[in-house]
Amino acid sequence: MIRLTLALDAMGGDFGPAVTVPAALQALASYQQLELLLVGSPAAITPLLAKTDSVLLERLQIIPAESVIASDARPSQAIRASRGTSMRIALELIKEGRAQACVSAGNTGALMGLAKLLIKPLDGITRPALMTVLPHQQRGKTVVLDLGANIECDGEMLAQFAIMGAVMAEEILGVVNPRVALLNIGEEETKGLDNIHQAASILQSIPSINYIGYLEANELLTGKTDVMVCDGFVGNVTLKTMEGVIRIFLSLLKSSGNGDRQSWLMKWVKRWMRARLTRQFGHLNPDQYNGACLLGLRGIVIKSHGAANQRAFAVAIEQAMQAVERQVPERIAARLNAVLPKSD
Amino acid sequence: MIRLTLALDAMGGDFGPAVTVPAALQALASYQQLELLLVGSPAAITPLLAKTDSVLLERLQIIPAESVIASDARPSQAIRASRGTSMRIALELIKEGRAQACVSAGNTGALMGLAKLLIKPLDGITRPALMTVLPHQQRGKTVVLDLGANIECDGEMLAQFAIMGAVMAEEILGVVNPRVALLNIGEEETKGLDNIHQAASILQSIPSINYIGYLEANELLTGKTDVMVCDGFVGNVTLKTMEGVIRIFLSLLKSSGNGDRQSWLMKWVKRWMRARLTRQFGHLNPDQYNGACLLGLRGIVIKSHGAANQRAFAVAIEQAMQAVERQVPERIAARLNAVLPKSD
Repeated sequence: MIRLTLALDAMGGDFGPAVTVPAALQALASYQQLELLLVGSPAAITPLLAKTDSVLLERLQIIPAESVIASDARPSQAIRASRGTSMRIALELIKEGRAQACVSAGNTGALMGLAKLLIKPLDGITRPALMTVLPHQQRGKTVVLDLGANIECDGEMLAQFAIMGAVMAEEILGVVNPRVALLNIGEEETKGLDNIHQAASILQSIPSINYIGYLEANELLTGKTDVMVCDGFVGNVTLKTMEGVIRIFLSLLKSSGNGDRQSWLMKWVKRWMRARLTRQFGHLNPDQYNGACLLGLRGIVIKSHGAANQRAFAVAIEQAMQAVERQVPERIAARLNAVLPKSD
Repeated sequence: MIRLTLALDAMGGDFGPAVTVPAALQALASYQQLELLLVGSPAAITPLLAKTDSVLLERLQIIPAESVIASDARPSQAIRASRGTSMRIALELIKEGRAQACVSAGNTGALMGLAKLLIKPLDGITRPALMTVLPHQQRGKTVVLDLGANIECDGEMLAQFAIMGAVMAEEILGVVNPRVALLNIGEEETKGLDNIHQAASILQSIPSINYIGYLEANELLTGKTDVMVCDGFVGNVTLKTMEGVIRIFLSLLKSSGNGDRQSWLMKWVKRWMRARLTRQFGHLNPDQYNGACLLGLRGIVIKSHGAANQRAFAVAIEQAMQAVERQVPERIAARLNAVLPKSD
């Protein structure tokens, strides 16, 4: 069995160790090959391990960290004062070769900046991007990026995101010659912002990218494209909008509706409907799709939702394991090498 | 009975007169006080009136227009070459006082530009914004703008949109002291783009605006705010994302699922569920919420979806009627006068 070691920022996120530690234990119990380095305050972490089976504890190590980056800190300030924080130490463990990937639910901007500083972007990548995979109506999946790492992007950055997304669709989803689209407010060439127009002309000039043009946000789940590219502000808003609508639909199916007048049959059928919707779209529920991959780095960094619960954080840990097993950075680097003009 | 005269751009939208003329007749049949000026090619319109009751035709007049602005035309070019187009003539009918409002399903950018040129913005408004009203989870409604009229906005523009949105929430929805929020990618003050930060500080300085801060897109339907403000690119993406998710959910409930194995009972229950979801969220279905109001002008201009069908275009006509009856421009002007510093 090949050992797989991940560093977890145990202090990040809205709930810190109260969520990350139980999630870590859950992952250790599920995956025999997994070893975890829990980075954070031993005083906060240790009590949560009190009732844990000693067999699990053999694959868990606490790496002490004095401080935490606040989730509302300005990224630039947080990065300057990052020495000794759980997030930075977790990333340094990758740099030192002690961990193969890192998972954090902390400040997105700080994680992005620190990862760029410590793990370094791949050649040809200006800035890493946050990516996730969404299920679509045709029973396939769509790679979507950037989800919030870069709130302002020029055309070149969007084009780089598109290339990385295409590699992910090929290598992770197994799509041959994946279709790549830019998210825009109309399909006509004249629509939208200048950076999107620039990205379109760059992508049109790369023969190995199957660029299919602009798509509007209502096509995100219809399966018209395998990769959808946008800037981080728009990506974040899109994803949050989806979450909001889906949460409301699921709650509607859960609610009692007409109250006592509902028969047992109706309750049963609603439960059945809800299970079916959850099966098809539950993946869009933040509890289940949690774990956006920071693409374009020389190592693997997974960003969990700040509000992730135990289950969601465990999913982010699984995402990190998958990315390690599938050698994501190496595959992106190889593709970039083939597509981009040589710098030397 | 007070007469109400609207000008319709009969040629705009994906389907032109095939949709706008039947929708016009439907509206005339529903509202006795309504008179319509159908602007477009008589040769295209007249055949569609062949079987119409002559009583309805008394309240309908064809205003000839030679040409149409293409939906994929660059707005700047389209505006320069707009003389004689159905959209321009429809707007001129407002300017001339022959119509009280105009409805068009044509090119959004051109409609925005021409409306600004011909109808003129209100004092204190840099650029008009597209607004709609969305139902939320607390059984109320939220005013959302801009939906695509201005894809790039500075902080002042966003603040103007917020003021107009607050007037709409008060006057149209009847909300006292409506809450106003800026759409952002986090609730912390440091999050997001500079123009949003600027808008926040302007809004904080206006005592009569109940500014509550930033909200994320997953709060759009939860009822946490009465007015949600964003730039037109983000607004368009948000609305289209919602549409996409809702279409998929509704189609899922319509689909046959497990095929022949479904009992009549299950089919019946699914139909019931679908009716319930449609009742609560069908308003988000483009067929039903169609008709975004171009706010900030000295007259009333309603933008219909380009892909609107007859039913949806008829809804846009109703929106125009409501805006006339509720004197939307006059009310916004009065509020702007009270809030903005006097220019003289």
